[in-house]
Amino acid sequence: MKVEILSYTNDPVASVEKAACVCYDSQPTEDGRIMKACIKSGHSSVVEHASFEFEISGVSRALLAQLTRHRLASYSVRSQRYVAEDNFSYVTPPSIKNNPDQLVTYDFMMKKLGEAYQALVSAGIPKEDARMLLPNACETKIVMTMNARELINFCHERMCSRAQWEIRELAVKMKEKVQEIAPEIAEFMVPKCEVYEIPFCPERKSCGRHKSLKEIVKDEQSE
Amino acid sequence: MKVEILSYTNDPVASVEKAACVCYDSQPTEDGRIMKACIKSGHSSVVEHASFEFEISGVSRALLAQLTRHRLASYSVRSQRYVAEDNFSYVTPPSIKNNPDQLVTYDFMMKKLGEAYQALVSAGIPKEDARMLLPNACETKIVMTMNARELINFCHERMCSRAQWEIRELAVKMKEKVQEIAPEIAEFMVPKCEVYEIPFCPERKSCGRHKSLKEIVKDEQSE
Amino acid sequence: MKVEILSYTNDPVASVEKAACVCYDSQPTEDGRIMKACIKSGHSSVVEHASFEFEISGVSRALLAQLTRHRLASYSVRSQRYVAEDNFSYVTPPSIKNNPDQLVTYDFMMKKLGEAYQALVSAGIPKEDARMLLPNACETKIVMTMNARELINFCHERMCSRAQWEIRELAVKMKEKVQEIAPEIAEFMVPKCEVYEIPFCPERKSCGRHKSLKEIVKDEQSE
Amino acid sequence: MKVEILSYTNDPVASVEKAACVCYDSQPTEDGRIMKACIKSGHSSVVEHASFEFEISGVSRALLAQLTRHRLASYSVRSQRYVAEDNFSYVTPPSIKNNPDQLVTYDFMMKKLGEAYQALVSAGIPKEDARMLLPNACETKIVMTMNARELINFCHERMCSRAQWEIRELAVKMKEKVQEIAPEIAEFMVPKCEVYEIPFCPERKSCGRHKSLKEIVKDEQSE
Repeated sequence: MKVEILSYTNDPVASVEKAACVCYDSQPTEDGRIMKACIKSGHSSVVEHASFEFEISGVSRALLAQLTRHRLASYSVRSQRYVAEDNFSYVTPPSIKNNPDQLVTYDFMMKKLGEAYQALVSAGIPKEDARMLLPNACETKIVMTMNARELINFCHERMCSRAQWEIRELAVKMKEKVQEIAPEIAEFMVPKCEVYEIPFCPERKSCGRHKSLKEIVKDEQSE
Repeated sequence: MKVEILSYTNDPVASVEKAACVCYDSQPTEDGRIMKACIKSGHSSVVEHASFEFEISGVSRALLAQLTRHRLASYSVRSQRYVAEDNFSYVTPPSIKNNPDQLVTYDFMMKKLGEAYQALVSAGIPKEDARMLLPNACETKIVMTMNARELINFCHERMCSRAQWEIRELAVKMKEKVQEIAPEIAEFMVPKCEVYEIPFCPERKSCGRHKSLKEIVKDEQSE
Repeated sequence: MKVEILSYTNDPVASVEKAACVCYDSQPTEDGRIMKACIKSGHSSVVEHASFEFEISGVSRALLAQLTRHRLASYSVRSQRYVAEDNFSYVTPPSIKNNPDQLVTYDFMMKKLGEAYQALVSAGIPKEDARMLLPNACETKIVMTMNARELINFCHERMCSRAQWEIRELAVKMKEKVQEIAPEIAEFMVPKCEVYEIPFCPERKSCGRHKSLKEIVKDEQSE
Repeated sequence: MKVEILSYTNDPVASVEKAACVCYDSQPTEDGRIMKACIKSGHSSVVEHASFEFEISGVSRALLAQLTRHRLASYSVRSQRYVAEDNFSYVTPPSIKNNPDQLVTYDFMMKKLGEAYQALVSAGIPKEDARMLLPNACETKIVMTMNARELINFCHERMCSRAQWEIRELAVKMKEKVQEIAPEIAEFMVPKCEVYEIPFCPERKSCGRHKSLKEIVKDEQSE
C-alpha cells in the first residue's frame, strides 16, 4: 500500500482558523488555537474548510468497497470497465502470507484468474464483463479527497483495533501524511477511544488498549 | 436480479405535495399537480420528502461498487467479513452466457474459486481474508433507501443506453416498483435524453434513441 | 411552536431491522433488537432507512437559520419571496416575555415593522426586497424530513442544555412525536451527555445535569 | 458585497486532471484537457477534488438563508448569538435605493431597530434573544468552501436571470474570483441555459437571453 498527498488546501490550518474567527468576530492566531478550541468543544464544522487529496495505490478492491461507504468524500477510481486488467497485481493478507500452504493455493488461483480473464478478453468478451472474474484482492488505485472533519471522523472509526486490517493501515498512513503538512490537524486523527479527555473504549469488547467506561469507574471505586 | 420495495414514505405523493404547498402557502391537490410543476421547473428539492427502501438481490459485487458511488442514499449490504460465502451464487453476464466456450471457462473458474475459498476458511484463514479470493461476480444482497429526487437523478444517469447493463437493469426494475406505488413520481424516472420538453441526447455519441441537439437543429434547417 | 408528523417510513422499526439483518444474514426480530444492537455498537448507518417528515410552525426565521445548518435533511420553507408577510406573526423569547418594559419596546417595533413592510409593498417594492425589513422573530413554517440517524445526532446536539432555547424546544417536541410512532428509535434521541453507558458531560462547562469525565473519575478516587 | 478567496486546493486544475487520469489509466495534460472532457461528458465527480474557500461580506442575512440551502458546501458564519450587533450595517436593495420616498422609511426603520436592539441588550436581554429584532437586511460575514462541481452547479442555478438579485450578484463575483485562479474551471460556471452545445432556456418563462427548446425548433421549421 502506498499513500501520497497529491494536493491540499493552501495553508490548511490558517484556512480553518480564519473561518472560525468569522463566527466569533475574533482574531486568528498563528498556531491554530481557535481551531483547536472549536474541535474540542464539538464545533467541528470549521475544519471542513481544509481538505486533502490522497493518491492510494496497491490496495484491494475489497478496501475500495469499504472505503467508499464513507460518503462524505470524493473518489476517482481506476475503472475495471475501461482499463485492461491483464497481469493484475493483487493484495495478499498477512494471515495468508504467513501460511505457506494456503499461500500456494492463493497465488495459484490468482494466476489462473489472470489467465481466464485474458482468455475471455481475447475471445471478444467486453472488459466490463470479463472483470466479473476479477477477485476482491485485485489491486486498484484511488484518488480520494476528504475534508479534515471527515478525516478526523474516519480515523475515529478506522484506527480502532477492531477495524479491518487493510483500512486500518490506510487510516494510519493517511494520518502520517497529514502530520507532515498540518500536525495541528493530525493530532485529532485518533481512534475513537482517545476522543475524550480521559480515554475509554466505547466498543462492546475492548482490544485492551483502553478500558471501558464501566471498568474505569469500577476500578476507581475499588481502590 | 430481484428488486422488491420493503418500505416507503406513507402516501409519498401527498407527503411531497404538502411540503411543496408550504413554500407558496397554497392548497395541496389530490393528483400531485403542484409536485409535478415543481419538478418540471427545477424546484426538485421538494421530492426529497418521499423515499423508497429497496431490497436488491441476485446482483454482483461489481454492481454494488457502481451503485455505492451514488452517495445520496443509504446502504446496508451483506457482509463478506461476517457472512460465510461457501457455495456462493454468481452473476453471469449475457455476453458470456451466450458464448458456450467462454461460459465453460467462466463456470469452471467460479467452481474453483468456491473450493479455494472453502479450503482457506477450513485452514483457519479468517473470512475477511479468505474473501480476497471472491470474484466481482459473487452475488450480494443490498438494502438501499433513496429519496425520490435522487431516484429521478439515478434514472437520468443509469437508464441511459450507455450505462453498464447490470445497473441499467436495476434502474429499470426500480422504476417498475415505484410505478406501482407512485406513478406520479415514476413518470419522471427517465433517461437523461428525455428530461426536457423536446428529447435529445446529451452524450457525445448517441445510441440512436434520440438525436443530439445539433442534429435536431440541423435537420430542421435542411427541411 | 407546533410540531406535527406529516408522514414517515411505513413500519419504521421493521424497515431498519430488515436492513440490519441483511448485513449479517440473520433473522429480523419483532422488537427491533438487532437495530438497537447496531446503534449501540456504532453501526448506525442502518437507521438511515427510516425517516420522518415534520411540519414545524410558529417558529422564528432565526430558528430556521440554525436548523438548516443541519445539512443531512430535506427542507421546504414558506417563501418570503413569494408569500406576502402582511400582519406577520412573530416569536417572543421568554426573556422578553417576562420583562414587561422590554416587551413593550419589542411589540411596538414588530408593529412598526409590519406597517413599514406594507408601506413598501403598497409602493410597488417587490416582496423579495420588502422582506429585507422583516425581523428574525418573524414566524415561518417548515416541512423537514430527517432520517433516524440524523434525528439521533440532532438530539445529541440540540437537546443539550447549552443549545439555544428555541431549537432545544424543537428537538424535545420532535422526540415526543417520534416516541408515539417508534419508541424503539426515540429512546436513542437523547442529549450527548447520555450517549454512553455512564452519562457524562463532554462540554467545557457542564450545566449540572451530568459531571465531566474528569470529575467522575476524581470523585471515585476521593471516596 | 465583497467576495475574496481565502484559500483553495493547490494547483486546482492539476489536482483534478491527475484524479481523472487515474480512472482511465491515462496521462495528465498541462491544460486540463481530460478534466474538460470529463465535465462535458457528465463525468463531473472528478472536479470535486478542487475546492475554493470564499470570504463573503456585506451581504444580508436573507442571502445567507438562500445560500445555506446549498447543502454540499461548508459554512462558517458570523454569529448573532455571540457577536453584538450594535450599529449593524445593512443591505439596501436597488429597488429601494432608487425610490427616495421608500428609502427614507427603510433607513428610518433600520435606525430604530438598531436603537431597540441596543435598548434590549442594555436592559440585560441576552444577545441571542435581542437578535430577534434584527432584520433580514442586517449584514453578515460568511466563509464558505465549495468544491468545483458544486460551484458549477451553483452557477447553473444562481446565474440565471430569474434568480434573486443578491445571490445572482454573489454567483457572478464568485466566478470572477475563480477565473483569476482556474479559468479552465470558471469557463463551466455559466447559467443553466448555456450548459449544452446549443444554448436554450429550460425555465417556463425565458428572460429573453435564450429561447426555449420548442421555440428554437419551431423557428427552424418556419424558416
